[in-house]
Amino acid sequence: MPHNGVIIVHVGAGYHSQSKVSEYRKACSDALLKAVQLLRAGVEAAAVAAEAISVLEAAACTNAGRGSNLTLDGTVECDAGLMVDRGAGGRFAGVGAAPRLAHPVRVALRMLEVQQRGLSLGREPPNLLVGEGAVRWAEAQSLPVSPASHLVTPEAQRRYDKYRRSLDEVDRERTADRKRPRLEAADETDSELRDTVGAVVLDCSGHIAAASSSGGIMLKHPGRVGQAAVFGCGCWADAAATTGRYGVGVSTSGTGEQLVMSCLARRVAAEISRSEHAIQGLQLGLKRGFLGSHYVPPSSQRLAGAIALRHDPGLGAVDVSWGHCTASFVLGYMAANSDSPQTLCSRLPPEGTPGATVLSQAVSIRCGPCAEHEPRDRPASGAEWAAGGADGEQGAPGL
Amino acid sequence: MPHNGVIIVHVGAGYHSQSKVSEYRKACSDALLKAVQLLRAGVEAAAVAAEAISVLEAAACTNAGRGSNLTLDGTVECDAGLMVDRGAGGRFAGVGAAPRLAHPVRVALRMLEVQQRGLSLGREPPNLLVGEGAVRWAEAQSLPVSPASHLVTPEAQRRYDKYRRSLDEVDRERTADRKRPRLEAADETDSELRDTVGAVVLDCSGHIAAASSSGGIMLKHPGRVGQAAVFGCGCWADAAATTGRYGVGVSTSGTGEQLVMSCLARRVAAEISRSEHAIQGLQLGLKRGFLGSHYVPPSSQRLAGAIALRHDPGLGAVDVSWGHCTASFVLGYMAANSDSPQTLCSRLPPEGTPGATVLSQAVSIRCGPCAEHEPRDRPASGAEWAAGGADGEQGAPGL
Repeated sequence: MPHNGVIIVHVGAGYHSQSKVSEYRKACSDALLKAVQLLRAGVEAAAVAAEAISVLEAAACTNAGRGSNLTLDGTVECDAGLMVDRGAGGRFAGVGAAPRLAHPVRVALRMLEVQQRGLSLGREPPNLLVGEGAVRWAEAQSLPVSPASHLVTPEAQRRYDKYRRSLDEVDRERTADRKRPRLEAADETDSELRDTVGAVVLDCSGHIAAASSSGGIMLKHPGRVGQAAVFGCGCWADAAATTGRYGVGVSTSGTGEQLVMSCLARRVAAEISRSEHAIQGLQLGLKRGFLGSHYVPPSSQRLAGAIALRHDPGLGAVDVSWGHCTASFVLGYMAANSDSPQTLCSRLPPEGTPGATVLSQAVSIRCGPCAEHEPRDRPASGAEWAAGGADGEQGAPGL
Repeated sequence: MPHNGVIIVHVGAGYHSQSKVSEYRKACSDALLKAVQLLRAGVEAAAVAAEAISVLEAAACTNAGRGSNLTLDGTVECDAGLMVDRGAGGRFAGVGAAPRLAHPVRVALRMLEVQQRGLSLGREPPNLLVGEGAVRWAEAQSLPVSPASHLVTPEAQRRYDKYRRSLDEVDRERTADRKRPRLEAADETDSELRDTVGAVVLDCSGHIAAASSSGGIMLKHPGRVGQAAVFGCGCWADAAATTGRYGVGVSTSGTGEQLVMSCLARRVAAEISRSEHAIQGLQLGLKRGFLGSHYVPPSSQRLAGAIALRHDPGLGAVDVSWGHCTASFVLGYMAANSDSPQTLCSRLPPEGTPGATVLSQAVSIRCGPCAEHEPRDRPASGAEWAAGGADGEQGAPGL
């Protein structure tokens, strides 16, 4: 069934200060417009996802590429991952803890291409490359590598200096540790420190790609890898031929270690594949698969968000959906036959509790050469699922 | 229910030349004896698994620690992972593409300990550390780091020189590539190039830990990470409280990228948890979860093996099982109340085809302070499951 493609992107589940929301939404908007331009030109899902992510990596406000959180050493090390559904080869590539890459997602895209081609002597092409080795692989592929200093923004340096000082104080007076504020819950000038970026794309051939990219947690140890680079955790893409009915793509955001232990992207995709409504699956994935996961250590506050796209090739319908148990989540979506990107900052309602309340929403799009669409799912409500709270456009006409 | 613990180890699914089998079995035997000594002293599962793996890492014949396959650069870079069941904290730690670590599994063990303790300022402790960052983390923890040359054995250097020459020739005359032999199916003096090592332990408190360690694929690109370091892929450990009835532990071996794409350890554990007999679950895991996986690229020959331990705390029974679709698989097992380790080289029968035939076997052990046990499951047979083929002791009395 012919259609023109759809994209949904996010710039992180976490806490977004009100003063910076317009900057985040602008980054989403730029990524959506770039992606739609490519979709209209017939570019395939993996490359569209990588280029959308590249726009977000380049945005200084996001924790990906340039502007990423700094490690304990004060340097940038990035994770990224990219997966395509079985129709497009069913492959995954991840890049972990890589220094000097302004666009780690483009390295992941090239890894997918090399997987497709194969290596001489029947060697198995890698699906996870890390650290300096990933940089050298990129160089051998003639992909650009940046000077380390190019990736450090003044804003990231300011945050680093502040928290590094705090950490040094704690390390001097160990006993005082319990009384210190935790390294989160930033003030109004900071946004949350966990933000990553992500994208899910349905292309005009009906193939799905999902991607994620992240600078990781503030003050992480050098060499630490988070969910963006790990198969099944940061992104997931499945064809209708695999799931039985729906093509599904997911990209996640939150505390990397928790997203790895809950294999969250895959879990959310599985729930969405078997639910009657995409939004039910998203809720179940975040509630059972994340908040209820046996594998996330019980001591830590659980923080995650996910964007998803579900394609019913039989009906020619697409649901884009998102959910989070963080204070806020900034995202946007756009159909290739639309004129304007939709962006929003979804916030838990005042009575919601980060780490316990899940907010999810969805928009249905009828695809095909002549798109019709209407908002369908209202925010879910009930004891466990908080309602409302988005401060941007949703299900707006013009999609 | 009191008992004295059980351990199963492997030194790789692949191809093992007949002339080297006794050396491989000796390594298994040494690891089992060391583990049983610790189990009898009441050491907990994670530490026992790490020490058993350390014995295998130190053995020059295995592709783990010293003696590992060399990268394209001619250096050693190791992956390792360790998981404990929920009763013991439900945690995972992985180390990827780490140079200069003779015992990467001990770094993973320390990571688990740090996860348990937590970090100052509420920072999330890492569950995957890679490359130089992993080495620096180990140094900061006062764990030993080796000179790079210490990890390269003359035998590994010989294999490297041989295949590197072959690769250089191919790279000079690119068109001839298709006619070259693939980088596998080694001659009688070589063993298969994919071997990793693994261990699954049930300790005297009834907790399970599983671990894996690997030097990775011969001539891998520096920075390449395989299944041993990736959550859910190289090892898995689940408590009976999580699965509903059985405690289960799994460790896998094979082509790392394929084991990652099939999340094989987790998949095998899930099948074993819900099967009436452990061996059925192991077969299903390897057949559906690996040979039938939608996510392993269809072009490559699929090569995997797995060892598993299933504990029924209600009955006080333990099943150890193993299976592989590679030409051979060398492994061993031992109960802590036994005097002698059991080791064997399981081989596909002559009519079997690597990458298509699955051979699996199991042994049941009744545990408790006074262990009784008997071989229960015979090799499965039928159109798809080849029978027989082991050239060592199995289900032997004295376990």
